Amino acid sequence: MTEHGRDAADSGLFTDLYELSMAEAYVADAIDADAEFEVFFRDLGPQRGYALAGGVETVLGWLERFRLRRDELDYLSSLGYFSDRFLGWLERARFTGDVTAVPEGTAVFPHEPLMRIRAPIAIAQLLETRVLNALHFESLITTKAARIVDAAAGRAVVDFGARRAHGADAAVAAARAAWIGGCVGTSNMVAGQRFGIPVFGTMAHSYIEAFPDELSAFRAFARHYPETTLLVDTYDTLGGVRNVIRLARELGDAFRVQSIRIDSGDLEALSREARRLLDEADLDGVRIIVSGGLDERRIAALMAAEAPIDGFGVGTDLVISRDVPTLDCAYKLVSYDDEPRLKGSTGKATLPGPKQVFRRWDDGRMEADTIAAAGEALAGEPLLRPVMRAGRRLDPPSALESVRARVGEQLAGLPAPLRVPDPGASSYPVAVSERLQAEADRLLAQHRAAS
Amino acid sequence: MTEHGRDAADSGLFTDLYELSMAEAYVADAIDADAEFEVFFRDLGPQRGYALAGGVETVLGWLERFRLRRDELDYLSSLGYFSDRFLGWLERARFTGDVTAVPEGTAVFPHEPLMRIRAPIAIAQLLETRVLNALHFESLITTKAARIVDAAAGRAVVDFGARRAHGADAAVAAARAAWIGGCVGTSNMVAGQRFGIPVFGTMAHSYIEAFPDELSAFRAFARHYPETTLLVDTYDTLGGVRNVIRLARELGDAFRVQSIRIDSGDLEALSREARRLLDEADLDGVRIIVSGGLDERRIAALMAAEAPIDGFGVGTDLVISRDVPTLDCAYKLVSYDDEPRLKGSTGKATLPGPKQVFRRWDDGRMEADTIAAAGEALAGEPLLRPVMRAGRRLDPPSALESVRARVGEQLAGLPAPLRVPDPGASSYPVAVSERLQAEADRLLAQHRAAS
Repeated sequence: MTEHGRDAADSGLFTDLYELSMAEAYVADAIDADAEFEVFFRDLGPQRGYALAGGVETVLGWLERFRLRRDELDYLSSLGYFSDRFLGWLERARFTGDVTAVPEGTAVFPHEPLMRIRAPIAIAQLLETRVLNALHFESLITTKAARIVDAAAGRAVVDFGARRAHGADAAVAAARAAWIGGCVGTSNMVAGQRFGIPVFGTMAHSYIEAFPDELSAFRAFARHYPETTLLVDTYDTLGGVRNVIRLARELGDAFRVQSIRIDSGDLEALSREARRLLDEADLDGVRIIVSGGLDERRIAALMAAEAPIDGFGVGTDLVISRDVPTLDCAYKLVSYDDEPRLKGSTGKATLPGPKQVFRRWDDGRMEADTIAAAGEALAGEPLLRPVMRAGRRLDPPSALESVRARVGEQLAGLPAPLRVPDPGASSYPVAVSERLQAEADRLLAQHRAAS
Repeated sequence: MTEHGRDAADSGLFTDLYELSMAEAYVADAIDADAEFEVFFRDLGPQRGYALAGGVETVLGWLERFRLRRDELDYLSSLGYFSDRFLGWLERARFTGDVTAVPEGTAVFPHEPLMRIRAPIAIAQLLETRVLNALHFESLITTKAARIVDAAAGRAVVDFGARRAHGADAAVAAARAAWIGGCVGTSNMVAGQRFGIPVFGTMAHSYIEAFPDELSAFRAFARHYPETTLLVDTYDTLGGVRNVIRLARELGDAFRVQSIRIDSGDLEALSREARRLLDEADLDGVRIIVSGGLDERRIAALMAAEAPIDGFGVGTDLVISRDVPTLDCAYKLVSYDDEPRLKGSTGKATLPGPKQVFRRWDDGRMEADTIAAAGEALAGEPLLRPVMRAGRRLDPPSALESVRARVGEQLAGLPAPLRVPDPGASSYPVAVSERLQAEADRLLAQHRAAS
């Protein structure tokens, strides 16, 4: 993935052709006033009661470094599609605009902007693809992680998803999002190195299979890692637990194995049986970790059944947000040259003009939000804050710890019906201010009359 | 994503902690004979009749370059978890083993290995995470693209998914997989540059909205790009079509607009109405492209209804394989020191020993496959071929064109019931050779008796 010396995530060329086509048309016609675009989720669907904003820091870093390299410009030139004038403009293109955003980790609801970007329209247009790509994916996984951690009700959750994420970079970004969302760590070593996230993991079935029998494998592994987790389901789960007990008898006081892991079968029944066998052998200090096809629904069911489980390893469902692998999110023009704009397409109508969201809290609980015009001053916490001005960040990047803490606060403030795996029709109250609604109605009528 | 100077996709540290833990235990105990691991899909589910092997070239390139860098070794040392002896071993670790694989683009079915890797066990174990990550994701999207292209029955399909892929690198890899799978191109400029894939795209709603009215926007855009595609659904789709017709009257012979695009609403009804309006205006040369929430099921329905559609832009569903965003795939130890191994976990039992797949063809159609032991010689095409020996590729990387051609041949050879969007219970006949099944039965009984 590095033939061209820089990865796609950092490239100024990470855009769709139509963004470039539009930019060229704008430049050619000297349509160069400032445009403001907003990113928001259109709808979260019945399986999501909230979304947590992710990717804000990724976008800001990308915007600060935004430029097209020589080889990228040469490629564009080779297409024979763009004028030399536009290629010259692209060579000089930098992001010198303003960004307003909610802090990363903030809970957002449909139609609430999580980011506003203001820049000359040709530049602002070019940014769309990468801005959406980063905000969408990181929000998706941060939200999924928070839901899973919430379902685990205080038990530790570890990200095991590296192998099933959509590529290597997605795995690393997902591990970061998982940690922000409340996981205690990851199995992903690149994420461990890059972000300082705690790393977890002990053994796989293949290790057991490399030995003539399971007990020999346990014996060898515990010699190297006395405080390890032993995987017990390679051949027969309860047989594996009995081998752990045999090892404990062999080692006596030297036995310091901390936990067992069950990765298949009926996790509720097996965890109960395993707990019973361990307790009968006076191994009540040995914890039970489970993994294998887990998501927030299965974890919630195991917790509701009071299965004696102390921790969860979650892979695929976490890193690809399997039940909802995409959220409907948009980057929409809301003003050009300070005049409000909207889109009236069937089912995709938008609210015009730059906006602010005011969130009312009551005793640490979110009560209701109002989406208002950016200039309005309503009661409540204004969620969007200036984060970049003239292409420069106003503050250093947020520490991961502080984003993680914000997620914890947001979750604690959310109405309980939105925190369940399937909130269905439950929704958070989001109003549109009178002034904003009147403006939307006026513009829509005007455009429909003109078309 | 590049703070450490190399992206995750290329890193030798792209692994899970447990792979390193196991490797250390192997190294410490001088368990250093060759192990052979196989990658296969366990089950494709009722929504997939086949999978196309992707990611083979990515894996081979990664294996050739496999090593841990100084900063990665320092990070591992900083964890205080690994011995200096093991860290020294890791510093010298390279891939010097053998790889056998199906050619990229080959159709595979459950339990058929797409790749075998043979190396000293500690090395082979370390590779698991990245090998699965690359083969899984690229197979997933290549397969999805082929299904979508198949449903479009000869109409052009373009990848529009960059914004909704799981990160920037996933978008680029998905664009590559989409092209291999039969798409005519992508909107993704980084993929265009990196792989030489044709790029497509013209305008978004925001361009229209930046003008006082739609006709002015069409007029301006067509001046810059006379042979463009005009997006007609910003305000009202048929109103947009009428504006295209007005523009045609204004421009007379100078009107060279090639197509219109409809991105919302009832695509069947709107395409018919748009076709009628265009034809009545003597614009029967103007094609109709549709986009917006499309997948193979919707495309198949539009084709079945004979909607007058000439091309499809497909985004989200393509690049994340929304209906099936993950396939159950495994990297399993099949032999150690040339002795066959298997895993007996509930629902996850595997076949022992290295394997070959023999595919019988009849008149260009696939008839049936047999999974056999690697040494067997059965009738049919052996799918797995040696691709790396002693850490070196036996052939240069396959050209994208040839992989794309192979996909086309495989699709043409697949039984028709497997090519529909929902094959359900239809499945391709895959047998296990007598010799292999007897060996599996023998080993499973032996392990169950021992545990």
